[in-house]
Amino acid sequence: MTDLPEEFRLIARCFAPLAGDGALGLLDDAAVFAPPPGRDLVVAADAIVEGVHFLPGDPPETLGRKLLRVNLSDLAAMGAVPLYYLLTVSVPRLTPSAWFEAFAAGLALDQREFGIALLGGDTTSTGGPVCLSATVIGHVAPGRALRRQGAAAGDGLWVTGTIGDGALGLLAARGEIADADGYLADRYRLPQPRLGLALAGIVSACMDVSDGLVQDCGHLCRAAGVGAEIEAARVPLSPAARAAGRRDLCLAGGDDYELLMGVPPGQEASLVVECGRAGVPVTRIGRFVAGEGVRVLAEDGRTEAIVSSGWSHF
Amino acid sequence: MTDLPEEFRLIARCFAPLAGDGALGLLDDAAVFAPPPGRDLVVAADAIVEGVHFLPGDPPETLGRKLLRVNLSDLAAMGAVPLYYLLTVSVPRLTPSAWFEAFAAGLALDQREFGIALLGGDTTSTGGPVCLSATVIGHVAPGRALRRQGAAAGDGLWVTGTIGDGALGLLAARGEIADADGYLADRYRLPQPRLGLALAGIVSACMDVSDGLVQDCGHLCRAAGVGAEIEAARVPLSPAARAAGRRDLCLAGGDDYELLMGVPPGQEASLVVECGRAGVPVTRIGRFVAGEGVRVLAEDGRTEAIVSSGWSHF
Repeated sequence: MTDLPEEFRLIARCFAPLAGDGALGLLDDAAVFAPPPGRDLVVAADAIVEGVHFLPGDPPETLGRKLLRVNLSDLAAMGAVPLYYLLTVSVPRLTPSAWFEAFAAGLALDQREFGIALLGGDTTSTGGPVCLSATVIGHVAPGRALRRQGAAAGDGLWVTGTIGDGALGLLAARGEIADADGYLADRYRLPQPRLGLALAGIVSACMDVSDGLVQDCGHLCRAAGVGAEIEAARVPLSPAARAAGRRDLCLAGGDDYELLMGVPPGQEASLVVECGRAGVPVTRIGRFVAGEGVRVLAEDGRTEAIVSSGWSHF
Repeated sequence: MTDLPEEFRLIARCFAPLAGDGALGLLDDAAVFAPPPGRDLVVAADAIVEGVHFLPGDPPETLGRKLLRVNLSDLAAMGAVPLYYLLTVSVPRLTPSAWFEAFAAGLALDQREFGIALLGGDTTSTGGPVCLSATVIGHVAPGRALRRQGAAAGDGLWVTGTIGDGALGLLAARGEIADADGYLADRYRLPQPRLGLALAGIVSACMDVSDGLVQDCGHLCRAAGVGAEIEAARVPLSPAARAAGRRDLCLAGGDDYELLMGVPPGQEASLVVECGRAGVPVTRIGRFVAGEGVRVLAEDGRTEAIVSSGWSHF
C-alpha cells in the first residue's frame, strides 16, 4: 500500500476496519447489499458542522458518535431497526492522522452499541470548518413505520427521557453555566437515540425532538391539523437541568433527541409497559386538543409565553 | 406555513417539490420505501466542497447537478440503475433564497435526466465554504454488480468518452487556459455519468475515473494483482483538450467520471456493440499485464514518467 496517496492509506487504516458486509472493503465505487426480505427500508441523512452542531474543541472521538446518534434518532422516530450508514468527512488538509484515528475509534464504539456497520462514503479536504454527513439505513415491517401525522384531539402527549440537557449542555461545554460532573456537556456531545422500542400500534404520532420541544410539537400539530397543550411542570428535567434553572431554554432549546409521541387514551398503559420493558423513561407532558398551535401551560394553568420557538438554521 | 421558521419554508418551497414516493413530503424524520423485489441495492456517498470540488463563482444551478453526477458515476461504475438520493446542504446563514431556488432548479433538471427522486436530507448553516453531500441508492441484479477486482493479464484496458476535460475544465473555469466556447469548463461543472450500459458479463473490472486515469488504473491493478500498460497516444482527448496541449494533466488530473474497464479479449467486440447501442464512445487505451503498477507508454514505445500520480485530499 506504500504507493497509495495518503487519502487511501487513511481510508484503509481508519475506515476499512469499520466496513460491514456489502461495503466491499471500501475498495469499490459503491456498496452492494441484499435488503432484508419483506421489509421496507427507512433512510435519513443529517449533517453536523463544526461551530454549529459541535464545538471546535470537542474531542474527535465524540464527533462521529454524535453524527451517528442524531441520524439514528431519526430511525428511532420511525420505529426502524438500523442496519448501515454511509459517511462523508470534510476536514482541513493538515488534519493529523491522530484525529482520524480518534474519530474512527468513536465510530467503532457506536457501531457496536447500535449494531450497525459502515457501508461507504467519502473523505475530502475543506478550507473551512469540519463538516460531517451521514446517511443511515434501517428497516421496518411494511406499513408499520411511525409517522408524524396521526395525532388526534384527546391523545396524550408523551416524551422519553429528559428535555433540555442538550441545549444546556451546549452552554456547559462553552463554560457559560456550571456543570460540575460534565453531565450536561456529555448529553450535548452524545445524545441517546431511543432505538429498540416497539411503538407501532401504540403511538398515533412520533418524531424526535431535535429543534426544541415546543417547535417540534408544532410539527406534530400541523401534520395532524390539531393543537397541543404542554404542561410545563410535567416536562421531565434531569437533576442537572433542574439545578441550572433555565426551564425556558429546556422547552425551546433543541438537541434533545428524545421521542415526542401522541398516544390514544386506550394505549397509554401499553406505552408505559413497553418503555418500562426497554428501560426508557417516559412521561406524559400534555395532550392534543382541537384547534391549532402549541400552548404551554404554567403550573397555575395560565398560558406561558415561550421566549424562542426553537432552532432554525436560516 | 407562516408560523414556520425560514429553514422549513425553504425546505417546503425548494426541496419538497423534488421529493419522490417514500419521501413523505420531507415532513417526517426519515423516508420509507419498498426495495425493488429480487434486486440488490447499491449505495454510494460523495461530498463536494466549495473551493475544492467547485469554485466560489460557479452557478448554483450547477452545484447540485455536479454533486448528483459524481455520485451517479459511482452507481454507473457498479452497473446499477439509480433510484433515489439523499442530500445534505451546509451553507452560510445569509445565503439568499435565490441561491436555494437555483440550486433546486438544477437538481430538478438532473432528476428528470437520470430518473431519480429526492428521499430526504438536511439543510444546515456553516461558518465556512458551502459543503454538499449526497447518498445515491440504486439497484442491480444479485451478483451482477461490476467490481474493480476482476482484471486479468491479457485483458484490454478500455475507457468511455474522453479523458482530461475535467482537469482542464478547472483551469478554464479559473481563467488559466483558453476555453473559447466554454466546453472544458462545462465538462468540469457537469460531468456525464455513464449510466445505462449493460456491462455485466462483458467487463472483468470496472470503476469510474475520478482521481486521475493513471492513479485509478492503479486501483484496478492492485485489486486484481496485475499491472497495466497505457498507450498514451490512444487515450481519447476531446478537440478542446487536444488544443490545450496538456496531455500530462489529462492522464493524471481527475474529475473525468468516465468508466475505466478491464475487458477479456473475447468480450471486446461485445463492449463496442453495447457502447454503440447506448451512444457512448469507448476506446481501448492499453492492456493488463502480469506484474504490478501502471506504465504509460509513449508513442515510441518508451515508458513515460507521469508528473503527478493523481489527486489525493491529504
